[in-house]
Amino acid sequence: MSDNHHDGPKKISTAVIKRLPRYYRYLGELLENDVVRISSKELSIRMGVTASQIRQDLNNFGGFGQQGYGYNVEHLYTEIAKILGLEKIYNIIIVGAGNLGQALANYLDFEKRGFVIKGLFDVNPRLIGISVRGIEIKDIDKMEEFVKNNNIDIAVLTLPKQKAPKIANDLADWGIKGIWNFAPIDLQVQNEDVVVENVHLSESLMTLSYEIKDKL
Amino acid sequence: MSDNHHDGPKKISTAVIKRLPRYYRYLGELLENDVVRISSKELSIRMGVTASQIRQDLNNFGGFGQQGYGYNVEHLYTEIAKILGLEKIYNIIIVGAGNLGQALANYLDFEKRGFVIKGLFDVNPRLIGISVRGIEIKDIDKMEEFVKNNNIDIAVLTLPKQKAPKIANDLADWGIKGIWNFAPIDLQVQNEDVVVENVHLSESLMTLSYEIKDKL
Repeated sequence: MSDNHHDGPKKISTAVIKRLPRYYRYLGELLENDVVRISSKELSIRMGVTASQIRQDLNNFGGFGQQGYGYNVEHLYTEIAKILGLEKIYNIIIVGAGNLGQALANYLDFEKRGFVIKGLFDVNPRLIGISVRGIEIKDIDKMEEFVKNNNIDIAVLTLPKQKAPKIANDLADWGIKGIWNFAPIDLQVQNEDVVVENVHLSESLMTLSYEIKDKL
Repeated sequence: MSDNHHDGPKKISTAVIKRLPRYYRYLGELLENDVVRISSKELSIRMGVTASQIRQDLNNFGGFGQQGYGYNVEHLYTEIAKILGLEKIYNIIIVGAGNLGQALANYLDFEKRGFVIKGLFDVNPRLIGISVRGIEIKDIDKMEEFVKNNNIDIAVLTLPKQKAPKIANDLADWGIKGIWNFAPIDLQVQNEDVVVENVHLSESLMTLSYEIKDKL
């Protein structure tokens, strides 16, 4: 609890940061159901973690709860959104406009949270010129100029793993701040200021096979 | 090290299980590059975890390493595959054959690891009848019969979140063992024998925005 009285920013562990989007999602569901406040115990039952874990996690950010009251859902939701940077607008491009790229472009929730898709790029002549949600798929040759002129913050890569490293480094040189990578490779870029978040879909499928393998 | 002498299966923590697919992926890359053996130190540098973490994790499964030699890459790769259940074949259906469903159906790596797509289902008449990699998209009304007659183990759900819970419970009743859920909801099914693995794509995007928010 003494942490609540610190003013400056403090270093928050990766494990806590990784749990914040889950808190955010649960609180969003509570808000949709017009829940005004919730105790850490109720929140913990819903989320399947301990109440003490929740208190510890949220105390990292100045303890939004009050003894005997619990958490104000909307306030906590808004504060976590701020911590996650969701009150800002991020300009995004999607590189690779096949099925996965188009699925991501069509996912409205991203836009609702401030991730605005500004451009889609591909090498495939059969895709170039097609519109997805009003955004025309452009030739990847036009990407450098587009990134430089449109203040693009994040590039989403849905590319074959052979092509991803070169394009990621190019994008970093052109001023991109973050890369959300779906190519099945742990992508790293030379420019250390650029943050890469790698998504490995098959890893969660393997967790599933681990859990069901003896039930077949 | 004393763990190596136990024979029976022991309970392995979720945290360890969640790291195994990463070991598997790295070892697969080493194999592709014809690397025969690797020390826990080298492996740790590649993976960005401590060597002691790697030794601890792998000792859960009987310590595949030898003092002064390190790990035999192919042996370790094969053993981890077995632990993850990847030496078995899983029959899969994809429910929801839009962009995301089709992207997953086209992802050949899944099939390479034993996840064989047997059927694709949708409600959309414009999709029904179309073939994806030789598999015809069928009307979701045909799904019950198909699941019961084709020994389906895993259902992949790429559905709106309103529809996912009902369909997940139906699939569980029809004998499915696992659900890989992409609907943006923490899905639970009434049948406790059915394992659900929820994928929340937006969570990793929020981790990215957290990390770049002060660089805009």
